[in-house]
Amino acid sequence: MEAKLREYARLLVQTGVSLKPGQRLQITAQVEAAPFARLVAEEAFRAGAGDVEMIWEDDAIRRLRLFHAEESVFDEGDSHSEAYWQGVARRGDADLRIRCSAPTAFQGVDQSRVMREYRAMSPVRKLRMERMNAGVLQWCIAACASPAWAAEVFPDLPEEEGVAKLWDSIFAACLVEGDGGASGRWAKKQEDFTRRVEILNRYAFRTLRYRSGLGTDLTVGLPDNHFWEGGYSFCEGRPYLPNIPTEEIFTSPHRLEVDGVIVSSLPLFLSGVMVEGIRMRLERGKIVEASAKTGEAVLLEQLNVDEGARYLGECALVSWDSPIRNTGILFRNTLFDENASCHFAFGDSYSMVRGSEGMSEEERLAIGLNVSETHVDFMVGTEDLEVVGITADGREIPIVVNGNLTL
Amino acid sequence: MEAKLREYARLLVQTGVSLKPGQRLQITAQVEAAPFARLVAEEAFRAGAGDVEMIWEDDAIRRLRLFHAEESVFDEGDSHSEAYWQGVARRGDADLRIRCSAPTAFQGVDQSRVMREYRAMSPVRKLRMERMNAGVLQWCIAACASPAWAAEVFPDLPEEEGVAKLWDSIFAACLVEGDGGASGRWAKKQEDFTRRVEILNRYAFRTLRYRSGLGTDLTVGLPDNHFWEGGYSFCEGRPYLPNIPTEEIFTSPHRLEVDGVIVSSLPLFLSGVMVEGIRMRLERGKIVEASAKTGEAVLLEQLNVDEGARYLGECALVSWDSPIRNTGILFRNTLFDENASCHFAFGDSYSMVRGSEGMSEEERLAIGLNVSETHVDFMVGTEDLEVVGITADGREIPIVVNGNLTL
Repeated sequence: MEAKLREYARLLVQTGVSLKPGQRLQITAQVEAAPFARLVAEEAFRAGAGDVEMIWEDDAIRRLRLFHAEESVFDEGDSHSEAYWQGVARRGDADLRIRCSAPTAFQGVDQSRVMREYRAMSPVRKLRMERMNAGVLQWCIAACASPAWAAEVFPDLPEEEGVAKLWDSIFAACLVEGDGGASGRWAKKQEDFTRRVEILNRYAFRTLRYRSGLGTDLTVGLPDNHFWEGGYSFCEGRPYLPNIPTEEIFTSPHRLEVDGVIVSSLPLFLSGVMVEGIRMRLERGKIVEASAKTGEAVLLEQLNVDEGARYLGECALVSWDSPIRNTGILFRNTLFDENASCHFAFGDSYSMVRGSEGMSEEERLAIGLNVSETHVDFMVGTEDLEVVGITADGREIPIVVNGNLTL
Repeated sequence: MEAKLREYARLLVQTGVSLKPGQRLQITAQVEAAPFARLVAEEAFRAGAGDVEMIWEDDAIRRLRLFHAEESVFDEGDSHSEAYWQGVARRGDADLRIRCSAPTAFQGVDQSRVMREYRAMSPVRKLRMERMNAGVLQWCIAACASPAWAAEVFPDLPEEEGVAKLWDSIFAACLVEGDGGASGRWAKKQEDFTRRVEILNRYAFRTLRYRSGLGTDLTVGLPDNHFWEGGYSFCEGRPYLPNIPTEEIFTSPHRLEVDGVIVSSLPLFLSGVMVEGIRMRLERGKIVEASAKTGEAVLLEQLNVDEGARYLGECALVSWDSPIRNTGILFRNTLFDENASCHFAFGDSYSMVRGSEGMSEEERLAIGLNVSETHVDFMVGTEDLEVVGITADGREIPIVVNGNLTL
């Protein structure tokens, strides 16, 4: 166990944020993650970190505040966080987030307060997104087992067993085996990502057509000069792995060229609320109808964050037969569940069009990229999903057949 | 146990910071204190807090940084903390610190790095001290049991037993019995503080003379118009209890009128290092010689923080026969151990001279108050300590006989 924890910590430092000697690392983590976060800090210093700074969070305190603090608190934003992240940007620090929230930590909370807080934090979020979009931030999101999360994934197990099983599932999904080879295994896995990305980029599809038995029936236009990525991202030429684990290859859809119906296939946990059975209808890119069997209010709040929240920002392909799916576990955490299923996101696009890095918002919109303060993944992959790529000259190429990538 | 924890949490909110309805509470706590800090937050909201904000700390990460971060990090200060504390000051928030550090958490750390960090944080500390000295901050420092602290107090007990015993000792020292009456017991205890303070203030001693078998032999001049305080402090007329527990009555010595030798009677834990067997010689207020049997380097670093660090800033009387002494436990934590023994502090004075609130540094120095960035308590009480007060007309009044207050 100890060996696996350390290997996992090293994976996040070496491969996740790909820390450079002398570079500083910012770690955002919940207080429950302290023992693991300290291991990561040790490994970061071993890798030559200039400094490691912690930003601690606590869901229990946040929940109390959302219930009991006076309303105006949520409109205030956070000028000291802004100052802080400006320093991070100026120095070029790496940014690691270690998540261990209980999926339903915020069930029952007044969503209008959540959204007020979310809007007020916009300057801080923008600082980070600009750097991500400009390709100058090494960032990584990963997970850490916690009693509260384990209790929702394995409700029938005693706490200690549940946590141990959740750790084992994380290790399995993240290729951590305790022999120190995890970074190597991810480098090897990158060969698959690279091959698939090259094939997709060579086809340069105009349109993707999705169909599933659940009711998804959709065409997704792709922008001129779009490209696919999978596995590593690059910060000034340096590969890093922004999500651990990751199974997806993804690009940006053309924000105005998506038409049809999407039906989600897995629950999504949004602001700590479970959103299940999403059904959306899109016309010329815009989500004109949206409903959900549970959590609809939270979904609609997110779709109303701004104009861009009503357009898609990501289109990602994952085989149904993936290591994460094969754990047989619903992690109730997007980082894992999105990597067990083809998915979309509504909201902000990554810059998956050649030459778009550093573009202004207006320029991004003009070439079909989306601009929003939100970015929410939701899963559409099923055992019977079919995705067909249509080339500029009208050829139809099967990409996903019976849920699995054919490339 | 649960009932005592809740009573203790309520004591810190109601009596410690004496939170006003609608007022915000800032809680600084280590991540290990999260379960207790959440109880305090609950009780704060129950008492009508406008908001509760957490500032989390972690000794393990701080220790790693002090060992491994690049040197320049420690000179940078913390502009976002400064912005933060300016907000706290502007709104008039209350400030609660919950400590649970292991006494020797920072043993072995390079003290020059600690001091660079300490100096760089000066603007933040000053903001807080100015408000304390101006009598416009409701603040409280209290403690919380932790495995690391318990292991140093009860090295022979298994972790769980040690933590339980430390909690019991904290409850005993803080008059927490689990029946919700702690605030009432402190109000009753205040009658003793008030009586003693009134007697001392009526005598208006010119000088105190200290003698103990350990070698303390000292005269301490007191400034004109000095006054004594004990128990409650007052923020714009509102009583609050800045230390829980507290047994001391204290005033400010005249910074230039202290002469003789002080020998410490209990270890002091300074920046996580044990300092034992302090011996100081003072001439016209200035500490001209200082040594310690262990931790001398740390002591000297603190004495060299600035000019004011070499002068006394507090003079406090505690009976040897005190509830904390009677637990028979050396807590290895100043908050507790200083309340088991008469003590002094070198460094900054509180404003224990009538009319000195809001005075400039120059004005404070002119009336005999001390100005420094540091304030370090050290214990001189022994079973045989004698303290005699000498009035303006030369009468000698015994104040402490055989270690105990006679008032």
